[in-house]
Amino acid sequence: MDNRRRFDAEGLEEFSSGVLKKLGIPENDADITAKMLVNSDLRGVESHGVAHLSPFYVSWIKDGKVKIKPQLKLESNSPTSAIMDGDAGLGFVAGYHATNEAIKRAKQAGAGFVTVKNSSHCGAAAYYAMMALEHDMIGIAITAGGRLMMAPGSKERAAGLNPMSFAVPAYQKHPFVLDMSTSVVAFGKIEIAQRQGKTIPEGWAVDENGKPVTDALKINPSDENFKGGLLPLGGRPETGVFKGFGLAVLADIFCTVLSGADLNTTSNHFFGAIRIDGFRPAIEFKKQIDQLIESIERLPVLPGTKRIYAAGGIEDEIMKDRKVNGVPLDDAVIQSLKELAHEFSVPFKVEV
Amino acid sequence: MDNRRRFDAEGLEEFSSGVLKKLGIPENDADITAKMLVNSDLRGVESHGVAHLSPFYVSWIKDGKVKIKPQLKLESNSPTSAIMDGDAGLGFVAGYHATNEAIKRAKQAGAGFVTVKNSSHCGAAAYYAMMALEHDMIGIAITAGGRLMMAPGSKERAAGLNPMSFAVPAYQKHPFVLDMSTSVVAFGKIEIAQRQGKTIPEGWAVDENGKPVTDALKINPSDENFKGGLLPLGGRPETGVFKGFGLAVLADIFCTVLSGADLNTTSNHFFGAIRIDGFRPAIEFKKQIDQLIESIERLPVLPGTKRIYAAGGIEDEIMKDRKVNGVPLDDAVIQSLKELAHEFSVPFKVEV
Repeated sequence: MDNRRRFDAEGLEEFSSGVLKKLGIPENDADITAKMLVNSDLRGVESHGVAHLSPFYVSWIKDGKVKIKPQLKLESNSPTSAIMDGDAGLGFVAGYHATNEAIKRAKQAGAGFVTVKNSSHCGAAAYYAMMALEHDMIGIAITAGGRLMMAPGSKERAAGLNPMSFAVPAYQKHPFVLDMSTSVVAFGKIEIAQRQGKTIPEGWAVDENGKPVTDALKINPSDENFKGGLLPLGGRPETGVFKGFGLAVLADIFCTVLSGADLNTTSNHFFGAIRIDGFRPAIEFKKQIDQLIESIERLPVLPGTKRIYAAGGIEDEIMKDRKVNGVPLDDAVIQSLKELAHEFSVPFKVEV
Repeated sequence: MDNRRRFDAEGLEEFSSGVLKKLGIPENDADITAKMLVNSDLRGVESHGVAHLSPFYVSWIKDGKVKIKPQLKLESNSPTSAIMDGDAGLGFVAGYHATNEAIKRAKQAGAGFVTVKNSSHCGAAAYYAMMALEHDMIGIAITAGGRLMMAPGSKERAAGLNPMSFAVPAYQKHPFVLDMSTSVVAFGKIEIAQRQGKTIPEGWAVDENGKPVTDALKINPSDENFKGGLLPLGGRPETGVFKGFGLAVLADIFCTVLSGADLNTTSNHFFGAIRIDGFRPAIEFKKQIDQLIESIERLPVLPGTKRIYAAGGIEDEIMKDRKVNGVPLDDAVIQSLKELAHEFSVPFKVEV
């Protein structure tokens, strides 16, 4: 049971947008950003929701790290591809426009891909991949962010945790939405352990000598004395760690190298959309996706497992509940929003 | 040190093609297939090389499971996409032509994707992804094969081991080539343990009750009493098993659902090519890939690790050696080729 206080999603959106506008962010950009943040909370991906508003976006804007009114630039050399320069603005804004550009190209040519350089943290990748769904397209979103992944066998970090998301429309079932960091666990799981004062299992993180780190508080990217990092998906050589590391480097290729960004920049992205009816009628495809998802949901479970989900199934269930019953927030998050309300004189009265 | 007997790659190709032609496979198709098989041996991916000639392809052709002269059909509804019907022929042949079709479309539109149904086992995915390299494109190859992956938390299998390969051209360095099953390990690792009579580590495979299977010989896909399978990449819930399972289902979506094949068929594929100069000049991109690969190779190593490789680096080193010094083969494989030589009266005198 989730006993936390719950808040109305639309109210949270309006509040978040209000704060961003007070900082000088143009109305449309503030609305887009707020919508994406709250969408993460709705889907239960709380590590990428309004919890980040104060410590990430508001503080970066105040510090001048994120430009208030970026001039996005688009350069293209083929019907299906383009590079966007995010002009150091909010990653949400560049990501939103880049994804729309990919979708526009896919409408005309069957597929569209836009790679983005000079951006900033763009929240959860799933939102962008899911933008393709209503157009009966498969959506792809990859982002190269942070630089906290250890190279297997090395004393050093060599990639970001580099999440990848793929969204595929269904007919009556929830869409298939895979959204995964290429590390064993996303950083959000470390943050949760940090907040709860819990240790983390061996196999998630190591120090610069390859020794397991189980104290979550040690894993602080801004602590210059911490030279360890998270392990790539697979974890160890005998369980496929080269796969997770390979996927992370692949993400760097799509986001950073394809966009022509410098190798040691992060916050570059890659968005794609592929039209289903370029292959076969979308309605037939979507009905078969329903069958595929149902076949997974019908699998007999082992003791201890309630139900098997296809990717995106849990998030879909959580969203249905939260749209009706509100978004639960941690006390620390509520406190940070109240402080923003006070600082920017934006009313925060959205408890359901 | 590899003390096995070594064989000339071109001779192995000629021999393999000769056997296939004796079975009635048209010359071009036999040559393509032989080239791909030997290419796997050259790259050290021996699980997908000439070791499979007799037990897989020759026996399937003899049993009538694989058609000798398939009529490939292509259907397309967008400049960038098409579906190929492999007409139950050799997967190598359908895969080769589908990949060329994807590359042709990418030349014109910047990107091309061809999904293939009604095919058969097409060998190592990397070959197809690497076909894009000489065109300065990023190559993608995914195949949905077998059905030996357990769904996490379930008593049943729910996907194939579904390998994915991505190939990215470099300038003077080796290309970046990731080729990975979406399971903890590829089936080839099980086969090696079976041949060597070794046990496998816990975490690779489980039975239908979720208990670890460490006896490699138990993992026999044609044994109806074995209802277990391999675990998805990630292995356990707390180390991201949903990611490997999600990738496996994604492969099914791209190969099986997008091509309109029946959900319980396997041996469907997806091939893609993306033109680099649709984004930025290929030469600049490739020079930066060199830098990225070099930055990985220069990483300081932990004790016990000789060197860090980017994906494809080890295979590139092995290929350079084997092109000069020949392809080493296991005695059992040599024996199987000699039996084919006798059965089909094709000379096998290719030892270096």
